[in-house]
Amino acid sequence: MALTQVSSNKRCDGYQKVFEHDSSELKCKMKFAIYLPPKAESSKCPVLYSLSGLSCTEQNFITKAGSQQAASEHGIIYINISTFTVYSGCNIEGEDESWDLGTGAGFYVNATQEPWKTNYHMYSYVTEELPRLINSNFPNLGKYKLYDATVLAESYSGPELDILIDQGRDGLFLSSSQLRPDNLIAAFSKQKIPVVFRLQQGYDHSYYFIFSFIIDHIKHHAKYLNA
Amino acid sequence: MALTQVSSNKRCDGYQKVFEHDSSELKCKMKFAIYLPPKAESSKCPVLYSLSGLSCTEQNFITKAGSQQAASEHGIIYINISTFTVYSGCNIEGEDESWDLGTGAGFYVNATQEPWKTNYHMYSYVTEELPRLINSNFPNLGKYKLYDATVLAESYSGPELDILIDQGRDGLFLSSSQLRPDNLIAAFSKQKIPVVFRLQQGYDHSYYFIFSFIIDHIKHHAKYLNA
Repeated sequence: MALTQVSSNKRCDGYQKVFEHDSSELKCKMKFAIYLPPKAESSKCPVLYSLSGLSCTEQNFITKAGSQQAASEHGIIYINISTFTVYSGCNIEGEDESWDLGTGAGFYVNATQEPWKTNYHMYSYVTEELPRLINSNFPNLGKYKLYDATVLAESYSGPELDILIDQGRDGLFLSSSQLRPDNLIAAFSKQKIPVVFRLQQGYDHSYYFIFSFIIDHIKHHAKYLNA
Repeated sequence: MALTQVSSNKRCDGYQKVFEHDSSELKCKMKFAIYLPPKAESSKCPVLYSLSGLSCTEQNFITKAGSQQAASEHGIIYINISTFTVYSGCNIEGEDESWDLGTGAGFYVNATQEPWKTNYHMYSYVTEELPRLINSNFPNLGKYKLYDATVLAESYSGPELDILIDQGRDGLFLSSSQLRPDNLIAAFSKQKIPVVFRLQQGYDHSYYFIFSFIIDHIKHHAKYLNA
């Protein structure tokens, strides 16, 4: 699978790059962004995959989240994908009619019905094709585990966990119950899994919120990934 | 002069806001962004004005520069203006023909010729109208001094200075001589003014570059503004 470099910019001592490739799962062109910290020039680094939300391209996270300084400092490779541009070339009828269905929506599932089932395989893409691509092209540690947080929590029986969750308290998606952190907290409670859940007063669901807490989260992951 | 709040988002413990108003200098609607650190809730804070480049709106800096964490920490109010959207409503013939003349270009001068001279008063706007507006509506320290760095350096005779400049070494605008840091360095040399000029290898003229060094600059200003 050939990668074409779309852009490369030095940032925080490392490089923010964007690549394009033909996806065999999605049957169209796909873009992903990769931040390579300076440490990656000489050794393998752990990778964090950040899944884009509805209507996002790979640009949202790299321009708005402010993750690079901490990724540089802790030697973390950061991957972000586009869930928006990817499907734009498929020309499926009705794909642009709704902001939260069709071209703007990844959903990280494999569609089973027409007209979506030929291209909309984002689940296989992020769990198989993309990690394979990253592992064979970049100096990372090659580990990848699947997470649906609530499902995993409900059946968890491993060693003690250290979980950090931030949630903006004053965003519309939470107040309209489109986000359900309570399901996750219920699973933790049932399983007696300790968690730090910070319901942040005044914050919404935007990248301003992500930017405000991303450093805490990279530090949190780096503690274990670099251990 | 009435301010209309366009948006307000909590970020890094403070608030990132955008306001709109009718500008008497520009004779059209103008937008500016203001970051209010948590300290501004209870006391006056120093203000940094960041002038937007060609084709920028107030959004470029607030989404891409990553200034808010340091502004929050050091108690600095940060102001950014739009040089792009401001003139879009003037409907001057030819205003959209070139990316670096017309609607996308502030230039921080007062135009003296038709068809620009009625609206294109960005010099008076940033040096008089905007500071007056900020000083009368927000809890800041109300100090404002004019800077054209090279002109000021050439005639400087005050107390010892502490100047920090970062410049991306590998951007197109520098290699094509559209940026002239050498003029500034020549003025410093002639006047025996000490300067730290960091020509940063690998960096370009983008916001990735600004993001990489903004924290150093806010700290640098805060050292004196909070003294």
